[in-house]
Parts: sequence; structure tokens; C-alpha cells
Amino acid sequence: MSIVIRNGTIVNADQTFSADVYCEEGKIVAIGNDLDVPSSAKEIDASGQYVMPGGIDPHTHMQLPFMGTVASDDFFTGTAAGLAGGNTSIIDFVIPAPQEPLMDAYHKWRDWAGKAAADYSFHVAITWWDESVHADMETLVKHHGVNSFKHFMAYKNAIMADDETLVKSFRRCMELGAIPTVHAENGELVFQLQQEMLSQGMTGPEAHPLSRPPVVEGEAANRAIQIAQVMDVPIYLVHVSCKESLDAITRARNEGQRVYGECLAGHLVIDESVYRNEDFEFAAAHVMSPPFRSKEHQSALWKGLQGGNLHTTATDHCAFCAEQKAAGKDDFTKIPNGTAGVEDRMAVMWDSGVNTGKLTMNEFVAVTSTNTAKIFNIYPQKGSVSVGADADLVVWDPEGTRTISAKTHHQNVDFNIFEGRTVKGIPSHTISRGKVVWADGQLNVEPGAGRYINRPAFNPVFDALNKQAELNAPKPVKRN
Amino acid sequence: MSIVIRNGTIVNADQTFSADVYCEEGKIVAIGNDLDVPSSAKEIDASGQYVMPGGIDPHTHMQLPFMGTVASDDFFTGTAAGLAGGNTSIIDFVIPAPQEPLMDAYHKWRDWAGKAAADYSFHVAITWWDESVHADMETLVKHHGVNSFKHFMAYKNAIMADDETLVKSFRRCMELGAIPTVHAENGELVFQLQQEMLSQGMTGPEAHPLSRPPVVEGEAANRAIQIAQVMDVPIYLVHVSCKESLDAITRARNEGQRVYGECLAGHLVIDESVYRNEDFEFAAAHVMSPPFRSKEHQSALWKGLQGGNLHTTATDHCAFCAEQKAAGKDDFTKIPNGTAGVEDRMAVMWDSGVNTGKLTMNEFVAVTSTNTAKIFNIYPQKGSVSVGADADLVVWDPEGTRTISAKTHHQNVDFNIFEGRTVKGIPSHTISRGKVVWADGQLNVEPGAGRYINRPAFNPVFDALNKQAELNAPKPVKRN
Amino acid sequence: MSIVIRNGTIVNADQTFSADVYCEEGKIVAIGNDLDVPSSAKEIDASGQYVMPGGIDPHTHMQLPFMGTVASDDFFTGTAAGLAGGNTSIIDFVIPAPQEPLMDAYHKWRDWAGKAAADYSFHVAITWWDESVHADMETLVKHHGVNSFKHFMAYKNAIMADDETLVKSFRRCMELGAIPTVHAENGELVFQLQQEMLSQGMTGPEAHPLSRPPVVEGEAANRAIQIAQVMDVPIYLVHVSCKESLDAITRARNEGQRVYGECLAGHLVIDESVYRNEDFEFAAAHVMSPPFRSKEHQSALWKGLQGGNLHTTATDHCAFCAEQKAAGKDDFTKIPNGTAGVEDRMAVMWDSGVNTGKLTMNEFVAVTSTNTAKIFNIYPQKGSVSVGADADLVVWDPEGTRTISAKTHHQNVDFNIFEGRTVKGIPSHTISRGKVVWADGQLNVEPGAGRYINRPAFNPVFDALNKQAELNAPKPVKRN
Amino acid sequence: MSIVIRNGTIVNADQTFSADVYCEEGKIVAIGNDLDVPSSAKEIDASGQYVMPGGIDPHTHMQLPFMGTVASDDFFTGTAAGLAGGNTSIIDFVIPAPQEPLMDAYHKWRDWAGKAAADYSFHVAITWWDESVHADMETLVKHHGVNSFKHFMAYKNAIMADDETLVKSFRRCMELGAIPTVHAENGELVFQLQQEMLSQGMTGPEAHPLSRPPVVEGEAANRAIQIAQVMDVPIYLVHVSCKESLDAITRARNEGQRVYGECLAGHLVIDESVYRNEDFEFAAAHVMSPPFRSKEHQSALWKGLQGGNLHTTATDHCAFCAEQKAAGKDDFTKIPNGTAGVEDRMAVMWDSGVNTGKLTMNEFVAVTSTNTAKIFNIYPQKGSVSVGADADLVVWDPEGTRTISAKTHHQNVDFNIFEGRTVKGIPSHTISRGKVVWADGQLNVEPGAGRYINRPAFNPVFDALNKQAELNAPKPVKRN
Ligand SMILES: [Zn+2]
Ligand SMILES: [Zn+2]
Ligand SMILES: [Zn+2]
Ligand SMILES: [Zn+2]
Ligand SMILES: [Zn+2]
Ligand SMILES: [Zn+2]
Ligand SMILES: [Zn+2]
Ligand SMILES: [Zn+2]
Repeated sequence: MSIVIRNGTIVNADQTFSADVYCEEGKIVAIGNDLDVPSSAKEIDASGQYVMPGGIDPHTHMQLPFMGTVASDDFFTGTAAGLAGGNTSIIDFVIPAPQEPLMDAYHKWRDWAGKAAADYSFHVAITWWDESVHADMETLVKHHGVNSFKHFMAYKNAIMADDETLVKSFRRCMELGAIPTVHAENGELVFQLQQEMLSQGMTGPEAHPLSRPPVVEGEAANRAIQIAQVMDVPIYLVHVSCKESLDAITRARNEGQRVYGECLAGHLVIDESVYRNEDFEFAAAHVMSPPFRSKEHQSALWKGLQGGNLHTTATDHCAFCAEQKAAGKDDFTKIPNGTAGVEDRMAVMWDSGVNTGKLTMNEFVAVTSTNTAKIFNIYPQKGSVSVGADADLVVWDPEGTRTISAKTHHQNVDFNIFEGRTVKGIPSHTISRGKVVWADGQLNVEPGAGRYINRPAFNPVFDALNKQAELNAPKPVKRN
Repeated sequence: MSIVIRNGTIVNADQTFSADVYCEEGKIVAIGNDLDVPSSAKEIDASGQYVMPGGIDPHTHMQLPFMGTVASDDFFTGTAAGLAGGNTSIIDFVIPAPQEPLMDAYHKWRDWAGKAAADYSFHVAITWWDESVHADMETLVKHHGVNSFKHFMAYKNAIMADDETLVKSFRRCMELGAIPTVHAENGELVFQLQQEMLSQGMTGPEAHPLSRPPVVEGEAANRAIQIAQVMDVPIYLVHVSCKESLDAITRARNEGQRVYGECLAGHLVIDESVYRNEDFEFAAAHVMSPPFRSKEHQSALWKGLQGGNLHTTATDHCAFCAEQKAAGKDDFTKIPNGTAGVEDRMAVMWDSGVNTGKLTMNEFVAVTSTNTAKIFNIYPQKGSVSVGADADLVVWDPEGTRTISAKTHHQNVDFNIFEGRTVKGIPSHTISRGKVVWADGQLNVEPGAGRYINRPAFNPVFDALNKQAELNAPKPVKRN
Repeated sequence: MSIVIRNGTIVNADQTFSADVYCEEGKIVAIGNDLDVPSSAKEIDASGQYVMPGGIDPHTHMQLPFMGTVASDDFFTGTAAGLAGGNTSIIDFVIPAPQEPLMDAYHKWRDWAGKAAADYSFHVAITWWDESVHADMETLVKHHGVNSFKHFMAYKNAIMADDETLVKSFRRCMELGAIPTVHAENGELVFQLQQEMLSQGMTGPEAHPLSRPPVVEGEAANRAIQIAQVMDVPIYLVHVSCKESLDAITRARNEGQRVYGECLAGHLVIDESVYRNEDFEFAAAHVMSPPFRSKEHQSALWKGLQGGNLHTTATDHCAFCAEQKAAGKDDFTKIPNGTAGVEDRMAVMWDSGVNTGKLTMNEFVAVTSTNTAKIFNIYPQKGSVSVGADADLVVWDPEGTRTISAKTHHQNVDFNIFEGRTVKGIPSHTISRGKVVWADGQLNVEPGAGRYINRPAFNPVFDALNKQAELNAPKPVKRN
Repeated sequence: MSIVIRNGTIVNADQTFSADVYCEEGKIVAIGNDLDVPSSAKEIDASGQYVMPGGIDPHTHMQLPFMGTVASDDFFTGTAAGLAGGNTSIIDFVIPAPQEPLMDAYHKWRDWAGKAAADYSFHVAITWWDESVHADMETLVKHHGVNSFKHFMAYKNAIMADDETLVKSFRRCMELGAIPTVHAENGELVFQLQQEMLSQGMTGPEAHPLSRPPVVEGEAANRAIQIAQVMDVPIYLVHVSCKESLDAITRARNEGQRVYGECLAGHLVIDESVYRNEDFEFAAAHVMSPPFRSKEHQSALWKGLQGGNLHTTATDHCAFCAEQKAAGKDDFTKIPNGTAGVEDRMAVMWDSGVNTGKLTMNEFVAVTSTNTAKIFNIYPQKGSVSVGADADLVVWDPEGTRTISAKTHHQNVDFNIFEGRTVKGIPSHTISRGKVVWADGQLNVEPGAGRYINRPAFNPVFDALNKQAELNAPKPVKRN
């Protein structure tokens, strides 16, 4: 099957220009004006529209078993909803239980993901440490296309990685050319504050943000970054939600350290007042970690994107229905943490970022797609409208509007944190691996159409870091 | 004439890949493996070498009349030397004398540049202000391809722009879609310190850095940036030489402001001890403004490049011979300010940046070429190895070495600030507008081969800033 | 006349302890438990109350001729109101018109102040420059007890000091052992923004803050501080109102520079929404420069006081009645700039600072009295409850309350920016030079009772700075 | 016994003035000009000299059992040496072994200290956690005059406190009105780096600083400070040695947090080059943690003292002889960590601080004595030349000189890290509790003359913090 997109304006991270795009066999094979293509090619008219790399959500949790339940969007419904929103790839997480062999967990998640409608890849979490973990990391990198490992600094007594694990895993990452990523919250402080809240009778969702204040995130972010500096390894921080952790990144980057930051569409536009809503369902539906923050943090995050201290946007898509959230009715620490959004990220970012002049269109492409592809070393296969790239494209109608609602969204969950927000700028078409899967409001997806994305190790900064390490190698003093 | 470069590794700012490059009529027309090209095409074998966008030096002063003399490299010798070093474009400066009409000065410089061997463009300096300046700025932008204006905050009683001029010119730049650039040093402080030095008997070149300490630069940088913020305009700082001005940039960027910084190859590797050399000629040969700094500033500048707070590298190439420098034998304030380097920038940056692991190869391309092209809105015509771009290329031999010396360089000056430095990584071939002008140590240039580069106004950030300004437009309160 | 204050708790900047205080002839002559004093001594029972150094307002403008009118509180009414609020000294300003000899202005102000009810001193403004100014500065320091000079960086075309004047005056201050102080706002930007506002039909008070945004203050603060650094002189910034200028101070202090900051009680508790009030009189009554700011700036200022980056609190007391403010009915730039508060500062600081736990009681004393005395070198004569100090005391009732109102205040003005605010913590007695001038709501003051405070030059940091300057003196290189 | 010091200039932290000082029964009982004193009073002529509060070293380890040996200065020799240097009090540390009951350790150390020649007090370390520790903390605060607890974030597998312990102990400190203090180094990173060094054959003292780079200290400092912020408790960081940890303090203080920093005289003047000395004894003699740093850190520390971000100076006096240090001949991790200096701190601080203009005399007093007294709530009993204070005084001869040497010092150790340094400014007399113990080079001390200093809980900032905590107490949302 082949497709030609005519009359559109191509927007890449580095430039904007007018040209047609021709795709065959899942790849972009030509870009140019008045392209001569086979008459069998399906033609999409993109007049007045932008043709951009499909979105990549670097942080999702489809059908995640978590806090006694399982996230309601599975790999099919979740990726399908993503396609409806112009998002053509996800990077999800393999999260082994403590003591569970990494390879077992990896294969379990690969099985689950077999039904995905769009392309996917996996960060693998390091939730415990022994020699087998050390060995399996190598297997994953060398034989399974994994180039990033995740570390939870929160969730004490569950999947939390302590400093010893961080230190050892980061060192191992450096050897393997893989990027360590972290969920940065100080798990000891969260645990202590949760106990204090409960003991003071603060049992509702309003206690959730109080048990995870910004400083708790800022401390962990700083710690992870400093450990990475000592270990000479680049680092990526997921879901930066507040000024404190952004500041930790910014300080490090200003010192030349190779640090990357991700923020969530939700954290950019929703504030913490939601937790004091008198409707438990509403408040609980917003419970995720890190929590939504006060408005000055939103402002800080936007500045982080503009100044190049934050690089990617994600959703941490992890959908739970009201029934699931009700588990924490009497104890906020039991509310399953997570919110959805894989379908809405692109439109929310465009509407709140490009339409307000916070971001240029090129920056929009960078933070929704290209930067993720570069950091995780799958560029320009992904994240680029260029000859040879995967035909993962979105045709973007800057005049189209949509009022976001759980009633109409494709995500398998009964709540939408962006409910009622009318966005201007929506995908008219989404093309996944060369196939039109979303056109003018119709989804045309199939389970299993998505493919696993192998991500090679050693992105270019590793070379540079290794050169530095060599030059700085310690030399003993000669003594008698 | 057509050329094919075979077997090389293409290094762009965003990616590295192996492919042949085919150029015709001064443009890149094909990139791919095993390209089928006309047999008449000249073939260059780039095995084991990198094919990169030719360097763009965004800051040179060829044949500048300055401090009672004229810079010794003219537009032919200067651009030719640049080509020998892998540099295929320069952006020079039109500097009207106070009260001189801008258009007169512009045409004068265009005439001078007619003999250039490589492509060139001009920033135009705003050295005074009246309605004619206001009007001529529009003419330059709309009809002469100028999209940047330069402001000297130093050189009191000569070309210094005071705050009133900065404020008015920056506002005008915003209207026209042009980027204001500044030489940031507080001219009042420099003047006062020069007088104090002379009155204390400090008449030698060692007084030069003492009359222009880092804080003097930091103050001006901060002031220019803040004025730009109030006027809602992006800003570009030339020759950032010290931590203080870099910090001003960094603070602003961290707040999301659109600020760009340039640093000089010389400031990255040479320190202020040169001014205390007992040989006057040696010390005077290093007199430029801002002066060379102590080593901690070099370290800061490298971090600025790594962290994305500095964007371009230049030379401020402005060559004066010993005889010219001697004018300040008894009074350091009379030493013509300026040093050369257009021929050496690329190799010095590679050797001290890439070979040490401070920069990746892609970052090298970004800071020597691509970022300048983007900021000054001539990307991807310049700064990119891509189909449709100008065939301005350098074939880089990472194993080649050269010992830099005034005895062997092509610059028309009797001194080289990098004298004796052996660099590893040199251009084996330079291609300018599709013509091989440097090959294996031989220059093949001709006067007038270079063309003027038109630079369109309104790079993408202007759109974003205008959207913001609209949304923030002040609204009066209704009162009785 | 002698007074003994019994049973109170003495609060100094450095400690809190219980003791009686005995005063004779305007001085504190004994402090101790169960003091044996002459039976003729008037006894004040301070049970349950605090005995503290009387407040010193380092920034007032009594009967100032300004913007075509004269401030409505004169030296008698203004200082009397201050005494009613526990404030026993002021430092006002001599402001020569451009070209007016400094000594003429100084003597004029000294005459006006003859009727003051409380002690006073004068900063002298440098509003222009020539050799006579240079000479008169010495006369003022050596013969008239002046140790600080003020510089307005705003008010273009009036009293604004340009960079040349700043540079020369700061250098002169260093020679004389006097502290330069600045009103930091970039006058060129203010002027340009005012014109732009008016040209856009923004003529009401709501345009006032828009013409003087925080960045305009931050730029000037940074500039003044950097000039002071180059000139090796300590510096004091008046009415720091925003994060931007506080940050400039903080950065400099973190580098070890001797920089001091003052903030106003009003800026700590009132926000910029007042300017959008639909009642012109209300809005205009708040017009002062710098303007009130948004709430995040208040929070920043409190942190500045806590962290030691701000040192003193003042009022910039400069009272204008509604009739006077009406001059700017159709043009906000004609509204006389100024607000009152000398009577309210102490109570507002206690209520919003100590009662909320932002400041300790000792810190309250430091920032309302002691630090001013130290910086301006009149400690421990002022600012201290200690034997030998002036008997300028306030007996503070932490349980007393007052609802601030123009209807009941003693200031000669028809508006109070703190109107309606109920403060807890008020002066039960004020003692000025050993005389009870305020007791339980009754003022007992007389014109001319106040005395001029001589302030000696060269506070201790000058010694240190001079030692540094000597050690760092430039040394020429010997050359043939 | 009574003493009168005549004709001196008294230097306190807040002021300098000329007066006689009269002491009786270990207290200062009168200060004034031409004091009338009993003829029996011993008279000291302090003409041309300064009379200052005796130094307080807030950080010493006399006769500490550590790393398999015992520090060579015991409480008698160590305090006696301190007196010879003008230091009249120390605060030492009780360091329980893991699982050792706090009260047992406390009593053990009190016994050891019985022979002290000068006054002393104890911080108590929290090296493990259970309910008994929680209970004993209260006993120590309420019945034993302890108001500070120490936490080692380094020394893994020994006395290191993990995050859980920090969180619980800090919370407990807040309840008790005690200040948590920390030795800030990330113990996991130190451990890992030590192993890596040894495995690379880096076994000599030059590996010591490489195993504890500044970032390792900065991380821990930041973490401790953030935990303190969450727990609403003030915090004190011992031996801040580098820019990174100072920056963590500075950031927090700029945000208004109550954070205090101590630095060591050694870190201010000695740099890391000592570790590469080819003489093992010399290099090993400097092994302490944190290690000496490169010169830019010294410069940062001085700025910290000047800007008020560092508050006290100490020595971490912990003396080991060459024979003891030799335990690490083949493995740097076995070299007992510690250096001496209690005798030299005052003179080194004066010579390198006051004589260079870095500090005023008043600041010298503040950072060597007064600030420690204030923070640890024993002011003005200690740290002040005032009536009622302990007669702990030093008469300082600013013209006197001494060349520091192990050959002549009174410390019981065979090495002096300041060896060969000639200081100008030395104590001519030291008075401890009203007794002359050092006069013109002669020590006159006796074991057991020193007394234990009770330090009351709840210094003034606790009140303020408690008020804030009350106002910010969380309130539940009412829901059905
Ligand atoms: Zn997470
Ligand atoms: Zn997640
Ligand atoms: Zn320049
Ligand atoms: Zn230049
Ligand atoms: Zn003012
Ligand atoms: Zn004023
Ligand atoms: Zn320690
Ligand atoms: Zn210690």
C-alpha cells in the first residue's frame, strides 16, 4: 500500500517547508514538490495543514498490574487511542517485581504487547539487584533492543531502588551504553509523610499532594543527577512536575552534564486544586505521582521546555476507572496512582503551547516526537519526516477543534483529566507504518499491527563521555 | 561542474550516517548509497573521513577601518583563508560611523566584499539614532536581506550605543523581524578603568584585561538581555568570553527567554596570561575585546556549549600586524583591538572539543555551522548536508594533523594566536558552492567567487513572540 | 527627666532577656533586674510586654517638593506620626535639583527639618555631576555627618543619574567612606514604556505597573551592584520590590560582595491588583515607584529578609492627598508618586512577620532598627537597648490590636494603604531621647524636639575593602 | 580571683569600642572606661590589642576511638592546646556504636571529658534507630543540656545513618527543640568509589580525594537540607568543604530556610595537592573527610563566610600520629581520617581572613565564636564580651607573629597541617572562666578546670517554625 500526502506544509524539529510526502511499504520514500507517484497511491490532501512526525509517548503503562489492580487500557486500546490522537509510538515499561528475573518480566510484557495497534518499545525497570540483574541488563541491551533502564526512587517496600542499587545500576548502564531513567521522589519522605497524614486524620485525596510535596521530588532528582555525574553516565528524568526538580536538571545542564527531562501534558495545564474537589471520584481520578502542582510550577515547566532544559513530553498514561480508584476511599494511599492521556497529549500541547506562542511549531515537534527519538537513539527512523524514515505521520489541522471528553474519547477509562477543554489544532489523519489508521474522526486499527522498536545502545553522547573518562583516568603517585 | 563525494560518513547536527553526496550547479542534489552519477563528475574519496556542512563564521571584520588603521585581511584573503580551514561562509559587519547614513555604509561594505572568495553576509551596526536610521533599518530588512543589527555597548565617544539607542533599536528590530546582537561591555566602566590604569602608570598590554574585567561584560550582557525581554525581542550576544555574561544568558534562557550566545575559538583555549608576556609584540598581538580570560572562564564556556546556553562559535577575525599594534606601544588603549583565526576555528574546535569528549561530532557541526544558519534564518540552505542545500561542504580527516603557525597560514597577518598548537582533525577538502577550493593542502580560490547571502526576516521565534505579545496586550480599566 | 521601665522583656537583635531599663538625660544608663533608681523616675510597667529599640525608618520624604507639588506630611507631622507607631528616627533625603549646589540643598533641608519631633538624618542625592559635586561630597562627609549618597536610576529628564555619574560618584564614595544607595529602575525603559502606554490609550493608574515591570528594576539593581563591584564600594539598594532585584542582590552577596537591601512594609503585604481598582482615587493613591507587585514577589521579599539578603525595612513615606493625586487623572505619568506609612511600619511588620512565624522577634528588631543603625554606622547609639545608647525605645504590647485607618492615623494624609487591616502587636509606649512621647494612645510631641543624627564615615567594611584593594593593586610588567 | 583588662579595644560581633573589662568569679562583671576595681585584681595591659570573646570550636574529637585506634589528643591536651590558641570552649561529639544505648555512650564521653582544661559540650550522634534512641534523645535534651544531634551520611557499614534514620531523627529533633547536624557525604558513592579505586590499583592517599569528590558532598548536603525542610527543622552542616555543598546551603537560605554552615580553617587555606606529595607520611597526615579541595573551593568558602551563608569555623580536630596513619600504608581506606588544629584556628582565621580584608574584625569574632554560641543557644553566656557573660576572653595582639610548627605546638600530635605558615595576629593572653591560662607564651592549665556547658533547647527559630507549622497545618476536605 502506498500513500501520498499532497499540498501540506512539513514541520520537522529543524525546519518547515512545503512539499508532498510519498510513503511505500511503511517507509517514507520521497519528499518533494509535485511528486510523481503511482496512480494506485492513496492521496491525502493536506492543504492548509501540517505534516509532522507522529507523536512518540515515551512514558506509558498499558495494562500495568499495580496496587492490586490492572490499568484499564491494554496495549490494543491504549495504542489505538494514541493513534486517534496523532501518536504513533509509545515506550512502555517492563517492571519486574522484586526478585523476579528481568528476562521473565521482559518476555511477559512482550507477550502482552503483541496486540498493540501501533509501534512500541520498553524501558526495563531495575527494582532489585543481584548478579543476575547485572547479567540480564547485558542480555537486554545486546539482544533485545533495550537501551534504557528505569529506577523508582519512590514506592518504599515495593519497587523502590535504594542508593546502592542506583549506584550499581548506573555504573552498569554506562558500561552497556544504556540510559538510566528515574522516577524521582524520595521514597522515605513520602512514606513518612503518608503515615503522618493518616495519623492526623487526613485520609482523603487532598492528602496525596501533601504527602509528596515538590521538595520531595526535587531532592530525589538532584540525588539521581549527582549519582549519574559521579558515574559519568547520561540520565533521563521522567515526569518532572515541579520547579524543584527542573532546577536540579537546569543546574546540572548549566554545568554541561548530559541530563534530559520529560514532562507530562497534564502537569503543564492542570493544578493541584483538583485534590480538594468535594467529589471524591473527581479528586481520586487525579491521583497520580508526582501529583499535580500549583500554577507556578506549570509556568516553570513551560520555561523548561522553551529553554531546552526539558526535552520530551509524555503522559505516564496509566488508566484506572472510578471503581478501581474507590479502593482508596478511606485511605488515599490505596488509591491506584495513574491518569490517562495518550490520546490527548498532542492536541493539548499544540493548543496550550503553540497557540499561545510558548512554543514554535518546530519546538512542538521536537518535544512531542523528535527529542524522544534522539535520546533513545531511534532517530531518524522515528521523529522525522525524511526519506528513509518510518511512515509514522500525523496530518495536523490547525483550524480543527475538539472538546475533550471521556464520553467521546477512545481511551478505555471513564474519566478524562482534560474533560471539557476545547483544543484548537487536531490530527485530521494519522499514518502508522504507512497505513492510514485515523482519518477525519474514524479509527481504522487492528490488534497486532504495531511492531516492537529495537533501540540500539550507545547514543552519541556515550562516545564523548568515554573520551572524557579516559582522559581523566586516575594515575597513582609513585612512592618508595 | 559536478562532484561526488564517496564513502564518507555524513555528520549533520542531528545525525550521522554513511552515504555519498552528489553536487551539481552549486547545490547538493543527491545523497544516498552507491549513487549513480554522471561520469563527468569529479570524485572525491572520503573513506575514513567525515562529510560535514562547511563552517560559517558569524563574526568577522575583513578590512575593517578601526582605531586609525585598517584590518590586514581583506574580503579576498580573509575568505580564502577561511576556505583553507573548512569555513565556507562568513557574516561580517557593516559599521557606520556616527551620523553616517546606514545605506551609505551598507553599500560601501558591499563594494568591498565584491572580491570575496566565499559566501558572505552582513550584520549592520546601529551606532547612532535618528529617524533616518529607523527608516533605513526597514530598507535593509525588506530589500537587502539583512536580518540582524549589531550594537556596541562599549567604545565610548566612538560607536557606543547608549540605553536610549538600545531601547529604540530593539523595538524596531521586533517590528521588522530582525535579531538585535550586542557587543556587551559597559563602556562607561571601561572608559573609567582605562583612565585609572593610565593614571597609575599601567600603560602596557597587561592593563588591557584589567580595564575590561569580566564583571564589565556581565553587566552589559545582563542589561542587553533585560532590555530585549522588555521589548519582547530575541537577542544574540557576540563573543561571550566569561562566566559572568554566560550566566546572564543562562539565567534568561532558564526563564524561557529567546537568547543566543556566541563564543570565540580563542576564548575557549587561550588565557589571560598572554598579556603579562614580557615581549610587547606578543602581548599586544593578543589585545582584543573582550580580552582573554582566566582558565575558569574557558571551562565555563565549554559548559555553555554543552548545556545549550551558547550556540555558535566564531573568531571575531580582525587581523592587525605588529606594525599596526605598535601604535599602542606607550598606551595600551591605542593598540588596535583584534585577532585573527578564521582559518583555524574549525580545527581548534574539533581538536579541543571533539577529541576531548567535550562535544559530540554532531554538536561540533551545530556550533560551527548549523546553529548560525538557524538563528540567522538561512537554514537549511546553509548548515546542512541535505538535498537542496548549497554545496558548501568540508571533508574532514579526523586523523590528519597540522601545527598551526603564522609561517604557514593563509591569513594575511604576521601572528597567530594558536601558534605552535598541533591539532588533530583537519579539512582534507573544502567545497564552496559546488567547487573544490581546498584539497590536500592546496588552495584554489578566485576573487569574487563568493556571493552575498540574503537572510530573510522573521525566523520562527518571532511568530511565537508575536502571539505572546498579542495575548498579553494591556487592557485599560473602565472608570467613570 | 528619668524613666524606668520595669518588668519587661528586652528584645535586641542578638538576644532576648528580662530586665528593667533606666534612662536619664536621653540615654540608657542602666539595665538590670530590680534596678535601684531615683524615686523621681517615671515608672512604666512593661509586664507582658517587650522593650525594644525604637524603629528607624531609613527612607522617608517629608515635605518633599516633587512632581509639581509638595508631600503633605512635613517634618513635624511625619515624625510625630512615626513616634505614634514606635518609630523614633528617620533618615530622609536631600535631593538637589540638577545644577543646584549640594550644600545649598543640604542647608535647605536641614532648615525644613528643624521642626522634627524625633531624630533624623539625611542621605544626600547625587542628581548631577561636576567638580563642585565632587568637592561638596567631601564637605558633607567630613563636616556634616553624611555617610550615604543616593542615586536615582529612574526619572529621566529630571533627577536621573546616568552611568557616568554612577561610576564617578561611586568611586568618590569609596574615597570618602560613604555608602552609595540607589533607586534602581532603568529610566530609559520606564520612559519608553510610559510613552508606549500613553500611545496605546493606557492612561489610567493600571498602566503605572506596566510601565515599570520587575525586569526594569532588576536590570538597574544588577547594574548598580556591578558598578559598585568594579569600584570596590559597598552598596545599599532602597525599596527592593521584586524577585528580580532581590536576585541581583542575592547573587552578589553569594559572591561575597558587600550589598545591602531595603524593602518596604507596603511591598511585603500589598499586591498590584490595587491598580486595577475601578475607583481612580483608590488606584492613584497606590501609585508609587517601584509599584506594588504580584504576590510571588511578596513571598520572595520575605525570604530575602529571612535569608539575610534583605536587611532593612522602610516606608518611602511620601504622602500625597487625593487632590494632589488628581493631577494625573488623565495621564498616569502625572500622578505624584508616593505613599505614606511611617506610622504603620512597625505594627505591620510585627503582625505579618512575627505573628506568622516568618521572623523571630530578634529578626524583627534587626530589620526595623538595628541593621539600619549598623549599615549607616550609628550603632549602638541607635538600634540597641544597651547602656550608653540613646533612650529611643518602644514598649511593645504583643496582645494589643489596632485597626489601621486614615480616619484615626496621625499622618497628614487622607489615605492609608493599610486601611482596614487589624494588626496584633502595637506600641503601648514610645520613648524618644528619654521622653515618653506616646503612651496608651496619646501623643505628647513637640516641634523641634528631634535632633540631627551625625553619621560617621567608614563603617567597618570599608577597612576590609581597602585592605583587599591594596593587596590587589595592579602591577606593571617590566619590558625593555 | 579577679582580673581587669585595661586599655584594650573590645571587639564583639556587633561592635568595636574601647573599654576596660573586669572579671570576678569567672564572670565579666563590669565593662567601662577607667573602671574602679579592687586593688587585688590582676591587671592585664591590653594597649594596642583587642579583647575578644574566646574562641569556640564547635567541632572536635578528643581521644576519639576511630578506625581501630584512638585520637592522640585527649580532653586535657586538646583543650589545653586550644587555650594556647585563644580557644576557650569546644563542642565535641558523643558517638555511640550502632546498637549502643545513647545514654551509655553519653556517660562514657562525659567521664573522658572530666579532665578537660577548658569548657566543653557535646553533640550526640544518631548512628542507629529504635524506640530507645527516640526516648534517650528526650532524656538528653531535657536532663543533660544537649541541644544538637549529629548524623553521619558517610561511613557505610559503620556509623552511617540512612534516609529512614535521618527522617525519623530530624522529626524527633523538631519535637525536642534540638538542631540536627550532618556530616554530608553520600556514603554509598564513597564506598563504591573506594572499591573502584582499589580495584584500579589506586591504593595511596592520592585516591582519597578521588573517592570523595565534591559532588558526593554536595549531594548529601542537598539531601539533608531538603529532608530538614520537609520536617520543618533547622539544620547545621558541619565541615562544608566545597562549592557544591555551600551551594546547597545557599540555595536553601535564599529560600528562607533556616540552614547553618560550618567550615574548617584547614579547608580555607590548604588545597588537595597535598595528597599527591611523594612522601606518604605527609600525604597521609592530611587524610581527613571531606578531603582538602582545589583552590576554587577555598575561594567559594570565603565568599560563603562573607555573604552569611557559612556561619562558623571549626577544626574537626582529630589528631593521629604518623604511626597511626601508617595503618593505611597499602590501602588508603585504612588511613585514620583526621587532622589537628584546635590550637591554630584563631590565628589562621585572623591572618588569612582579617589581614587580607576578607573579613572585618567583627566578622572574625562572629565566625570564630559568637555565631556558634547563638546557634547552639549559649549566647551571651559564651561568644560575647558583655556584663554577665562567662569570662572566656582572648587578648589579641595584631602585631604579634608566630610560625606554626609541630615542633612548638601544644597539640599532642607529630604533624601540623599549617606547618611553616607564619601568622600575624596571635593571642597574648587567654582567660578561661576568669583565670589567665595563657600569657605571653606560657600555658598555665590544669586538668578538670573545664566545665560542661549545658545548652538549652528551642533556640528562637524554633518558635518561628512552630508558628509557621501551625498556620500551615493540613485541613481535611469535607466530603459525603
Ligand atoms: Zn512514575
Ligand atoms: Zn510511570
Ligand atoms: Zn566586539
Ligand atoms: Zn567584532
Ligand atoms: Zn525611590
Ligand atoms: Zn524614596
Ligand atoms: Zn565529619
Ligand atoms: Zn568530625
